[in-house]
Amino acid sequence: MRIGVVAPARPVDRIVAARAGAFAAIAYPEVDLVFHPQCFESEGHFAGSDAVRAAAFLQVANDPAYDAIWFARGGYGSNRILREVMPRLEEPARRKAYAGFSDMGFLLGALYAARVGRPVHAPMASDINRAKGDETIARTLGWLVRGDRQGLEPELGGRPAAAFNLAILDALVGTPWLPDLADHVLIVEEVSEPLYRVDRMLFTLANATQLKGIAGLRLGVVNDVVENDPPWAESLESMMRRWAGDMGVPYLGRARVGHAQDNHVVPFGIA
Amino acid sequence: MRIGVVAPARPVDRIVAARAGAFAAIAYPEVDLVFHPQCFESEGHFAGSDAVRAAAFLQVANDPAYDAIWFARGGYGSNRILREVMPRLEEPARRKAYAGFSDMGFLLGALYAARVGRPVHAPMASDINRAKGDETIARTLGWLVRGDRQGLEPELGGRPAAAFNLAILDALVGTPWLPDLADHVLIVEEVSEPLYRVDRMLFTLANATQLKGIAGLRLGVVNDVVENDPPWAESLESMMRRWAGDMGVPYLGRARVGHAQDNHVVPFGIA
Repeated sequence: MRIGVVAPARPVDRIVAARAGAFAAIAYPEVDLVFHPQCFESEGHFAGSDAVRAAAFLQVANDPAYDAIWFARGGYGSNRILREVMPRLEEPARRKAYAGFSDMGFLLGALYAARVGRPVHAPMASDINRAKGDETIARTLGWLVRGDRQGLEPELGGRPAAAFNLAILDALVGTPWLPDLADHVLIVEEVSEPLYRVDRMLFTLANATQLKGIAGLRLGVVNDVVENDPPWAESLESMMRRWAGDMGVPYLGRARVGHAQDNHVVPFGIA
Repeated sequence: MRIGVVAPARPVDRIVAARAGAFAAIAYPEVDLVFHPQCFESEGHFAGSDAVRAAAFLQVANDPAYDAIWFARGGYGSNRILREVMPRLEEPARRKAYAGFSDMGFLLGALYAARVGRPVHAPMASDINRAKGDETIARTLGWLVRGDRQGLEPELGGRPAAAFNLAILDALVGTPWLPDLADHVLIVEEVSEPLYRVDRMLFTLANATQLKGIAGLRLGVVNDVVENDPPWAESLESMMRRWAGDMGVPYLGRARVGHAQDNHVVPFGIA
């Protein structure tokens, strides 16, 4: 099995790639993990220009020799290649899994909207850098390479689901790149935001015409919360219940996804 | 003429209200400027609970004794009263102007979408606190009280226009509260954001199905920019041209609106 690694947003260090590659070689010897050189390019904020990142993604996506794309890292920028890459995906791109999260939600969402391949919310190669990061990335590799369900979010329960970073989902709302999530349990997670902004993003989610038909909401990890001045008086659980109530859908509790070691795999649709 | 001041987001200090009121009394003696006591309430982040803020807004909006509503201050929170207030606006609410900006864009947008009254992007009472803040708020009072066009954004040029804080517009995209801005020149401004986020919000704007028919984009003040790490290489002008190009509309240059002393008045529609 061959997995290609590309970086549609920010670059990774070679040392991080080497660590992820070394772990994969030992724990999943049947996988050929290929880091595209684009992962290490740098142009300002990005892992190469929009054109360079789009070309690398298209090259691996359209190559029948690759069974999956694993995103190297998030950051910001995968939205900037959607217009270039989405119309150019060919038949081999339809037979692949695409695994990542955070900013990669732009691509996962657009792929799911276009019914291309199998988008998967999952830890990325750069997550090897976390404490016990080997366990974290093993969830992705186990699922992609062996169909190992141990790394799946534990309570998917056979229902269709999708998971997004809340800010990325918010940025997709109102655009044609947002997939139809009717009857899906929608899991959102957030990092490095003050709670008033989380509340504002939940307003958009709860009022989004495109999301009216979802089955329910779950909340992943919300961490590195930026201090609110004055302090935000409401709990996250109360916020979720309030906005889910406005939306007319049930709040179904917490989920083990997010910007954390505990991040689990959520294949879009039914796992 | 009577103008009611309410605070659908955060509270104002009594001293700020007194300063704005004193200036109005001297410069516009024909106006009766009435600060609703709700402006001074405080509940955590907000100027009173959602119910309290909604009730104050509805009370003044539906009172035929008031000719206009002037918002006291932005912050965060006016989105949280839309569901309560919008269906309860009565005939007197349709004959009023509503003046404010920043977070108040939620209300201005929803009012414009519902064709209720005359929403106006304009400096707020709390802007008296700026250096030369008397000049700033005089633009709003001059327009509301005397139809004085000197405070209008100088290049509206008789075309329909609307002005929004970019983050607020972004939060409205995809919801039924976003007005139809077909054939409008859309002016956006931003404060206290890193440029990667400005870029991400412009992505949403440029890809928003609801905004396809706008006449063009203008950029107001972008200030207190949060440092980007690594530095953002692209100029704001270039970003605007790129996203306007994706949108297929012209970028029409800068506008004198935003979180600054120079903020000017933009009546929604044709001034």
